[in-house]
Amino acid sequence: MPRILRINTRTKEFKFEELGEYAGLGGRAFTSRLVNKEVPADCHPLSASNKLVWSTGVLGGSGASNSGRLSCGAKSPLTGGIKESNSGGQFAQTMPRLDIHAIVFEDKPEEGAGFSIVEIYADRVEFKDATPIVGMDNYPAHEELKKIYGDKVVTALAGPAGEQCLSASTIQFSDPHLNPARSAGRGGLGAVMGSKKVKAVVLDPAAKGRMQPADPEKFKAARKRWTEILMGHPVTSQGLPGFGTAILVNIINEAGALPTKNFRGGRFDKVADISGEKIAEVIESRNGKTKEGCHTGCVIQCSQRYNDKDGNYLTSGFEYETVWGFGANCLINDIDDIATMDRICDEKGVDTIEMGTTMAVVMDGGGLEWGDSKGAIELLKKIGSSDPMGRIMGNGTEMAGRAFGVDRIPTVKGQSLPAYDPRSVKGVGVTYATTPMGGDHTAGYAVATNILKVGGDVDPLSKEGQVELSKNLQIATAAIDSLGLCLFVAFAVLDTPDAVQCMCDLVSAAHGIDFTADDFIAMGVNALKDELDFNAKAGFTKKDDQLPRFFSEEKLEPHNTIWDYSIEELQAAKV
Amino acid sequence: MPRILRINTRTKEFKFEELGEYAGLGGRAFTSRLVNKEVPADCHPLSASNKLVWSTGVLGGSGASNSGRLSCGAKSPLTGGIKESNSGGQFAQTMPRLDIHAIVFEDKPEEGAGFSIVEIYADRVEFKDATPIVGMDNYPAHEELKKIYGDKVVTALAGPAGEQCLSASTIQFSDPHLNPARSAGRGGLGAVMGSKKVKAVVLDPAAKGRMQPADPEKFKAARKRWTEILMGHPVTSQGLPGFGTAILVNIINEAGALPTKNFRGGRFDKVADISGEKIAEVIESRNGKTKEGCHTGCVIQCSQRYNDKDGNYLTSGFEYETVWGFGANCLINDIDDIATMDRICDEKGVDTIEMGTTMAVVMDGGGLEWGDSKGAIELLKKIGSSDPMGRIMGNGTEMAGRAFGVDRIPTVKGQSLPAYDPRSVKGVGVTYATTPMGGDHTAGYAVATNILKVGGDVDPLSKEGQVELSKNLQIATAAIDSLGLCLFVAFAVLDTPDAVQCMCDLVSAAHGIDFTADDFIAMGVNALKDELDFNAKAGFTKKDDQLPRFFSEEKLEPHNTIWDYSIEELQAAKV
Repeated sequence: MPRILRINTRTKEFKFEELGEYAGLGGRAFTSRLVNKEVPADCHPLSASNKLVWSTGVLGGSGASNSGRLSCGAKSPLTGGIKESNSGGQFAQTMPRLDIHAIVFEDKPEEGAGFSIVEIYADRVEFKDATPIVGMDNYPAHEELKKIYGDKVVTALAGPAGEQCLSASTIQFSDPHLNPARSAGRGGLGAVMGSKKVKAVVLDPAAKGRMQPADPEKFKAARKRWTEILMGHPVTSQGLPGFGTAILVNIINEAGALPTKNFRGGRFDKVADISGEKIAEVIESRNGKTKEGCHTGCVIQCSQRYNDKDGNYLTSGFEYETVWGFGANCLINDIDDIATMDRICDEKGVDTIEMGTTMAVVMDGGGLEWGDSKGAIELLKKIGSSDPMGRIMGNGTEMAGRAFGVDRIPTVKGQSLPAYDPRSVKGVGVTYATTPMGGDHTAGYAVATNILKVGGDVDPLSKEGQVELSKNLQIATAAIDSLGLCLFVAFAVLDTPDAVQCMCDLVSAAHGIDFTADDFIAMGVNALKDELDFNAKAGFTKKDDQLPRFFSEEKLEPHNTIWDYSIEELQAAKV
Repeated sequence: MPRILRINTRTKEFKFEELGEYAGLGGRAFTSRLVNKEVPADCHPLSASNKLVWSTGVLGGSGASNSGRLSCGAKSPLTGGIKESNSGGQFAQTMPRLDIHAIVFEDKPEEGAGFSIVEIYADRVEFKDATPIVGMDNYPAHEELKKIYGDKVVTALAGPAGEQCLSASTIQFSDPHLNPARSAGRGGLGAVMGSKKVKAVVLDPAAKGRMQPADPEKFKAARKRWTEILMGHPVTSQGLPGFGTAILVNIINEAGALPTKNFRGGRFDKVADISGEKIAEVIESRNGKTKEGCHTGCVIQCSQRYNDKDGNYLTSGFEYETVWGFGANCLINDIDDIATMDRICDEKGVDTIEMGTTMAVVMDGGGLEWGDSKGAIELLKKIGSSDPMGRIMGNGTEMAGRAFGVDRIPTVKGQSLPAYDPRSVKGVGVTYATTPMGGDHTAGYAVATNILKVGGDVDPLSKEGQVELSKNLQIATAAIDSLGLCLFVAFAVLDTPDAVQCMCDLVSAAHGIDFTADDFIAMGVNALKDELDFNAKAGFTKKDDQLPRFFSEEKLEPHNTIWDYSIEELQAAKV
């Protein structure tokens, strides 16, 4: 039976519990319920009252394609609201082998306590002194852990940024390619891990258990159909595997929605240098890989192996948003430098999206010349060091804005906006404004329907239909996140009539229950309700559901659009 | 006729206007009304939409004792709410000589524009290139202005912190002793001035006008009685003139409410080294002055001239809160070093209260050893420089907390709490929680009645009567701030039966109206209503009316008290 593992980081006691009141919940539905129920909404995110929760999805460990995503939840140090930060990597695939559905890190050590490596076994938890890897970047720290636990060890790491409790810190999870390259990126949960003095978490390398579906035959059939669905859609079978998410660079630029120079324009004149096509060309010329999965069981394979000029591994999980953030938004067009920045973010443990907008704000404030990629690399290297500039960078866009006296701050609820200008992709703007997560595209990716014409066709420049679109996508996303599925399955799901039923069949067969499409929707709605409830208790109101004023005041070229939603109009996007 | 001077900092146009809809309002009532009416509550505080408003009080320029305070208003870069920051100095006494009741700085220059010195005359405004004083500390900058405009020039300066738009920046006003030693300290209005590229404002040194009371005889009589009232109370005639506000060090320590080591204790074991008595002794031994006024017409004389060991002027306006903030709260007991820190804050243009709590938070985060006064001095010197540590410090307590990963952050609405622990002076805790200003003691100084037994006797350790006390004091304070009177008149007013009538007589005689005690109260209530209304529009709710959780979780020695108010209980303190 899958269990909850609670770990008290102060007393170092642990407890395996039955799921109890959390039975039936997984992934985001699980983390958001637990955080809403057990974390005082008015606590400081770095205080002992906050809890860090990791949960596999309802389909975690089932073996269904792309079901290995991990949800990480807590009160966010970045937004002050609830956070679910979603990561690939091997963690969510391995926890079920230990019969562990979720891990909850509670309390925090006394002042002056050192960092620990937390070893998790099927029957116990052990705290080991982390001193040898404290202060170390994530890749070398992971190498050290490999020396102790073996190459295939499954780890979670707080990087130097997380150790310092910087509010844009990630938690880095190890991937199938033996690198700590997958991030629970958004919302600063690495800082919560750091506040609890957990440097690393290691899952028993000898873990052997395997989840057995309740109805093996039915599960097998559903699983087969599920893979067919994913392999039958052009985005998930051709676009993403061929070019990764960076395929969007040209598409969004063409749509006039690629934010340029801290959201001043919608097109980048040097876009050809940073496009997905260009990246694929570079990768192939250096014997890298254009297709890799972020976790075992992924059939979409949107990740890659990006090698440097000498053919040595540089980075992976090199996403469109990262290319955009350090690229167009900072007027940088050197793709190797951008890849280097991606790697540094993974090394220090900071969110690449937040760092891209932070860098642009620093440039806006005169802290660095526009387009200075070498200078940008040096700034990122400071993160996690004693250099106070690293402390500014690692705390993200709003903090950099205050440090440099900048009034052009592209954030919602304290979290930076990603790579789609909301004036010309209005659907995703509705998501930015209204999701309980703060500025976030993944929470309701209306770009799909606005630009890619997946799941319908809603004009990106018009207000019509966007609020409803965003709401429906927010619900579907929360449900997909709760099943532990990769969000990219949504491209296929939205265009395939039997896809929702197929996901329900997977759940039903895996758990021996009758899980319907209504249950699927309810799971998404309830997760969102937990999140909105927590945020309301934390002091958020509808006033927080709006974009910064400059989006309403400045027209965006080339379409000369502005953001023109009232707060009242936006409320209908919330469940 | 007194006029409003509007200055567009982008176009450099100016306009003298009649008071119009703002007639009858002065000081805080004026600034809060104008900000509430004319500034979009959701604007970025550093954006062109914000306005910086300076207003003399209703009694400004009348010649009544202690009527020369200036109210500065804007949307605060520190709190995100409305701000009235109150300053001494000669500015409010000189504006009426130019028939100027209020000055409104609007819009902001284009990107890349340089700083200006704004010269204000009775008939015009001139913008001069400020390049020669840009980047200069406030004292040397003021010296340069004296060379141009004469020794007695009346100036307002944005220091190096304000130039960088740091959110704890002050505006420094020149005092009668020819130094830029008076601050509109709280809430970061120096950053708003900096955002508008105003380095300095200079009032016509040849200003000669003089306000004539409508009823000279009545005014003369009321003015005489008013001075008698101030001179008849022991706090305003003996305590404050003898020792300045630092007389409180021993008193509050004795009461067990002197926050020590970032609000961990209520008494400082080295209090004797930093007491008001000790400071007076040092001042006298060095031929300084224990009595000085912050503006012409002050009869309380709580300021001083603090000389260094060589007998040279070091600082003035050396307040209790400053002594506490860099002293007990940082475990520093070297009074000369604390005086040096006060001077540096005036030089860089940052709020000493915010800096004291910021320093303690940096110490809490391991950025400096507790008690390291030399290190603290070095940190303050970085403010306004290109050193990023200065950018962290100059943005105050919450930003330092994020930079150093500290969860013990003594702020309300983003502004740091001052020198009275709310667990053992509960009345002022109610003010901290509920005033629209954010953590602020001056907004409703219940210390008077809780500890000094002025205006009654309410047990500081008990909840009983505190909410009503705070509410009444908040109203009276807003009214006093609106008349342009020094807040310290309240000590005498609270204990003198005819004092409110005397203030009303002053207003009536000065303006030829019938101003009653009800009008006085209404002026305070209406100012607060404007402020609460603005904050509500800016997104504040009652959830923001509470102290950080640690005050409710940790008992404060020696009385072992906690903060035990629910948000609902606190709402009654609001008008």
